[in-house]
Amino acid sequence: MSSNSIGKIFTFSTWGESHGKAIGCIVDGVPSNIKLNESDIQPFLDKRKPGQSKYTTQRKEEDKVEILSGVFEGLTTGHPISLIIYNNDQRSKDYSEIKDKFRPGHADYTYWEKYKIRDYRGGGRSSARETAMRVAAGAVARKVINKKIDNQVKITGALIQIGNSKINYNNWDESIISQNDFFCPDEKIISKWKDLINNARKDGSSLGAIIELRASGIPPGLGEPIYDKLDSDIAKALMTINAVKGVEIGNGFGSVNEDGKSNVDEMIIKDGKPFFLSNNNGGILGGISSGQEIICRFVVKPTSSITSERKTIDSNFKETTISTKGRHDPCVGIRAVPVGEAMLASTIADHCLRFF
Amino acid sequence: MSSNSIGKIFTFSTWGESHGKAIGCIVDGVPSNIKLNESDIQPFLDKRKPGQSKYTTQRKEEDKVEILSGVFEGLTTGHPISLIIYNNDQRSKDYSEIKDKFRPGHADYTYWEKYKIRDYRGGGRSSARETAMRVAAGAVARKVINKKIDNQVKITGALIQIGNSKINYNNWDESIISQNDFFCPDEKIISKWKDLINNARKDGSSLGAIIELRASGIPPGLGEPIYDKLDSDIAKALMTINAVKGVEIGNGFGSVNEDGKSNVDEMIIKDGKPFFLSNNNGGILGGISSGQEIICRFVVKPTSSITSERKTIDSNFKETTISTKGRHDPCVGIRAVPVGEAMLASTIADHCLRFF
Amino acid sequence: MSSNSIGKIFTFSTWGESHGKAIGCIVDGVPSNIKLNESDIQPFLDKRKPGQSKYTTQRKEEDKVEILSGVFEGLTTGHPISLIIYNNDQRSKDYSEIKDKFRPGHADYTYWEKYKIRDYRGGGRSSARETAMRVAAGAVARKVINKKIDNQVKITGALIQIGNSKINYNNWDESIISQNDFFCPDEKIISKWKDLINNARKDGSSLGAIIELRASGIPPGLGEPIYDKLDSDIAKALMTINAVKGVEIGNGFGSVNEDGKSNVDEMIIKDGKPFFLSNNNGGILGGISSGQEIICRFVVKPTSSITSERKTIDSNFKETTISTKGRHDPCVGIRAVPVGEAMLASTIADHCLRFF
Amino acid sequence: MSSNSIGKIFTFSTWGESHGKAIGCIVDGVPSNIKLNESDIQPFLDKRKPGQSKYTTQRKEEDKVEILSGVFEGLTTGHPISLIIYNNDQRSKDYSEIKDKFRPGHADYTYWEKYKIRDYRGGGRSSARETAMRVAAGAVARKVINKKIDNQVKITGALIQIGNSKINYNNWDESIISQNDFFCPDEKIISKWKDLINNARKDGSSLGAIIELRASGIPPGLGEPIYDKLDSDIAKALMTINAVKGVEIGNGFGSVNEDGKSNVDEMIIKDGKPFFLSNNNGGILGGISSGQEIICRFVVKPTSSITSERKTIDSNFKETTISTKGRHDPCVGIRAVPVGEAMLASTIADHCLRFF
Repeated sequence: MSSNSIGKIFTFSTWGESHGKAIGCIVDGVPSNIKLNESDIQPFLDKRKPGQSKYTTQRKEEDKVEILSGVFEGLTTGHPISLIIYNNDQRSKDYSEIKDKFRPGHADYTYWEKYKIRDYRGGGRSSARETAMRVAAGAVARKVINKKIDNQVKITGALIQIGNSKINYNNWDESIISQNDFFCPDEKIISKWKDLINNARKDGSSLGAIIELRASGIPPGLGEPIYDKLDSDIAKALMTINAVKGVEIGNGFGSVNEDGKSNVDEMIIKDGKPFFLSNNNGGILGGISSGQEIICRFVVKPTSSITSERKTIDSNFKETTISTKGRHDPCVGIRAVPVGEAMLASTIADHCLRFF
Repeated sequence: MSSNSIGKIFTFSTWGESHGKAIGCIVDGVPSNIKLNESDIQPFLDKRKPGQSKYTTQRKEEDKVEILSGVFEGLTTGHPISLIIYNNDQRSKDYSEIKDKFRPGHADYTYWEKYKIRDYRGGGRSSARETAMRVAAGAVARKVINKKIDNQVKITGALIQIGNSKINYNNWDESIISQNDFFCPDEKIISKWKDLINNARKDGSSLGAIIELRASGIPPGLGEPIYDKLDSDIAKALMTINAVKGVEIGNGFGSVNEDGKSNVDEMIIKDGKPFFLSNNNGGILGGISSGQEIICRFVVKPTSSITSERKTIDSNFKETTISTKGRHDPCVGIRAVPVGEAMLASTIADHCLRFF
Repeated sequence: MSSNSIGKIFTFSTWGESHGKAIGCIVDGVPSNIKLNESDIQPFLDKRKPGQSKYTTQRKEEDKVEILSGVFEGLTTGHPISLIIYNNDQRSKDYSEIKDKFRPGHADYTYWEKYKIRDYRGGGRSSARETAMRVAAGAVARKVINKKIDNQVKITGALIQIGNSKINYNNWDESIISQNDFFCPDEKIISKWKDLINNARKDGSSLGAIIELRASGIPPGLGEPIYDKLDSDIAKALMTINAVKGVEIGNGFGSVNEDGKSNVDEMIIKDGKPFFLSNNNGGILGGISSGQEIICRFVVKPTSSITSERKTIDSNFKETTISTKGRHDPCVGIRAVPVGEAMLASTIADHCLRFF
Repeated sequence: MSSNSIGKIFTFSTWGESHGKAIGCIVDGVPSNIKLNESDIQPFLDKRKPGQSKYTTQRKEEDKVEILSGVFEGLTTGHPISLIIYNNDQRSKDYSEIKDKFRPGHADYTYWEKYKIRDYRGGGRSSARETAMRVAAGAVARKVINKKIDNQVKITGALIQIGNSKINYNNWDESIISQNDFFCPDEKIISKWKDLINNARKDGSSLGAIIELRASGIPPGLGEPIYDKLDSDIAKALMTINAVKGVEIGNGFGSVNEDGKSNVDEMIIKDGKPFFLSNNNGGILGGISSGQEIICRFVVKPTSSITSERKTIDSNFKETTISTKGRHDPCVGIRAVPVGEAMLASTIADHCLRFF
């Protein structure tokens, strides 16, 4: 079987294959009387859209979203919102080379073992194309959050590391994140990243990346211990993104090096309200939001589709080799930024509706 | 609200507070006709039990588990298995000092904001005491997995790092893991870890840790993309453990430094069967088990209960200070090892029942 | 909120409004490698389609279903099957008269109280048009059941009562059910039913009906006590159908008149296999299928849309009157037959996948 | 597998066998800061308790409930409430006669086919003893409803028919329901019911019954169409009760005889508020509460445990006969009244928490 829904109250369910007729999703649990139309969603899809710079895939997909239900006269009705994106280009491209081969590092072999059938056209259901619908659902999630929480929630993602090249946090400038091809907050590192990507491409290889997500304006109280903690739901949501191999909250893996005395985030009263002197815990304590900024990170492994030849097997369990032709992202982590934002937004929207 | 169940087919639901009458759980979804009695569960609880070495808390809890239902004449019936551990020591200890204070780094403040009531006795529901029932459920999960998968599944956890002191993987000796106070696989590092713990305690501080979990013998096919991928369910399960701040699969965060060419885990045929030349992906591809060993890690932050005085506020939102008296673990990561094993086992059991 | 999914393993989720752009559903949990195309689904939709006889509504809807995902080269892939029916006629008809009025007996008032917004065009989401997608999902369910159970499962519905006119069970002839305008198994009663319908229409009124569903070939073991019993899941599924006010299994409400001695369904061995001497329990004992024919019934109240004038209020809470114009079914129970079949089929498919 | 939980937000999960050590449940989703102690629950259990009159079973069970978690200093904490009732009498009674025989009309045969193991002691998990925990959970549900809805919700059940003897609604006197052995609202029929029961017992037989449940004070808006309608969730909840074979809402099956014109429940404005001129729909329209009294009924088949000898088979599939010894209810419908109330209360509590 497969599992295609996420969330308990705010939920979305995606469907569609990379090269099928269309991809789509049902966004459910949206309260009624929220203003919503396609223009609330499209900008987020445009951020993720391929073919926007020479550092991502050169494929062209228009990714034009259409609302099919759940909105009446510009307002949500409280009923399921069906979103669809038709696949422009479902031409019967020549997939003969990879039809029977399992691309190493991909889901080809495991899908075959599980389902005994494989839609080989571009990865079918396992394609990152599915994440377009997450981005669409995430845009709706943002509307829900803003309806529930007045105090201006802001959810932003940024690329903080490509390969072994990490940003300098002192240079963090949020305003430039949307102004460069990498969602990078550190202007000084961008030229280096360009070189890294170009070199990886020339080398027939690819690069990993780390994305940091921040959500500010979240009130205390979101998250349901013991088993739907806010951080465990975030971890799950981010780990479902293609090629993600790790998730951390606040200091994350770095907290192993912390001293217990400094790591505890002392509290005082400031302006009559509880105030934390640090945010080592990334805005989540005991699985519940603390009112601080929520900070989390996830790592995306180097793209598995590379032009260098690699050993693999085919569906007859014969040895062969493969090298990926075509226009693949040399660093899928870049386009994972808006996807990560969307998964965080939808997790927060779900817990907003569970709490308020 | 709170959320106290995990799993879809193999599920468990825990209840009980640190200093209530008892703690317990319902383990459900267990197929009928599996041999089960208390002695299948108790050894795992004994591994987690406090008071076993001077490197963990000196509290004494017997943690004697009793099966109340779901087993008839030594066999599971297919009906819910109710497990209970009575709390020996629910004496009305003097909690007056922390009654109104929020221990920094703990869930005290966020529980207060969410529930507007707090069982202050030892953390109530947010106490790590709850994890005893996870360990009990995990023991049942192991029985389920062995029923479903003949080829000897083995699920093992080990501590691989305390503070900044990491094991040398070349020294890995599985046989010693259960023979030392740290679940450490590297004999040569143990004396250093003893010093680290002793120093942290003397310093009124605490230490973080990283635990590695391995599951071998898992066939390909477990996990349900897109939203119940095996790795995303593992990430969620591990992130629910108290004080965990990060989870990774295979190379995890380290994969950011990998080259795409080496990271893809090439395949050949060996002895007539698919064989991977490496395991950078930790046994999971596209969210589905690949048949390789499943490898994951999680990080536990330094214990928040420390004897050094720290700034905090109370439930009247007045500033105060706190220092934790009593017998706390200087490194909760140690006792998290059997808990991590249990969460991995129950996640695998759930996906076994979903797949087979 | 609304809830738009049903089932645990075999699930479907519907979306769309009566006069929106389209209606659709996601059918999920379908095992891979089942042959499926539109022609497996369309015949069931055609049974439900309006405008087929003068005894149902005269509206014309083509109800042409399209598969958008989850099928590759004629076989299911194990991934979500997205089905869509475009609404031919979404012309901006004149709804001004009912725009602000609550049609009595309908969901208009309660939707208004719950959602504070109402898609007044033909009932929006509360329209029976939504049931077209259930019928489509039910067709897929039949394919799943046949894949899982070899021994020829047959699921059939029939109208057994209109108003106070009930069939004679001795005249039951399954072959004629699909040959008349009423899904009636008793040829002798048809002319009377025609008169009843015609008279009700002339009188500006409407009639209720009782539908009987039978599923043969179901093996013992389906159903999960205590809370997902086969009969309780059937009851829920049927009660979700528009205008249904009661559900019963086997002797149902009639069992109150039975004697305990005759009602127990004695067992013997026949041809080496367990055999029941009667089927008062409708093929379900303790919430689990017994291997006998499953028999259940549900009642559909008289259509609420009638041409006679009735008192009601509007959304400003002013008193007014209403009489429904247009081409409504004088007895919605007739077209509920294929919908009931679909709900029973999907419930059985779900429990097949849970049991086998 | 079995399924042992019900509800989405307000949920309860039961465990335990008729003759095991104890039975219990976890009630979850209860908001914090509601006053709760055992004395809020015990009176409802006492209503259901056997051995209270000569018209029900003569077995003696104390059914003393104990709260093990989720309540601190008399207030709910928002965490799971664990309830337990120890089984007084688990003596190793002689079950040798029924050990291998399937009692006709019971779940014995179907449990055997499903689980291939059977706890034969008193029916094990399939025993109506499980319903004690539903009654306990229902008592908690009432507290939740009263917390959420100020305007005095009242949930009451009454027996309206035993065998073919039905009450006269004109004699309905709510005050006497709790004053007689039958939960009967019609004083004039009681002596006849006594005779019916006595005769059935003498005849080695048993009787069916119909129970009517009413909930007043429910505001409009509860229920989530399309698939968690209030009436479909009520239908499911009631159908899970042992021996129930039918459920109806409002006019129920009787609505087949209604005229569309009278059945629609016209609306006017009265005292400035919407007012219905009738309640044929039982307080639910389109699956959502209308603000009227919720009225539903369910039928309980004649007790299957009778002293008359009946044909059956054993677990070796050999023919045999059986007659039930012991102290069984001649009409289980009587003790089903408080169980029905509890299921209705918990369904309403769940939808209260989903709506408010």
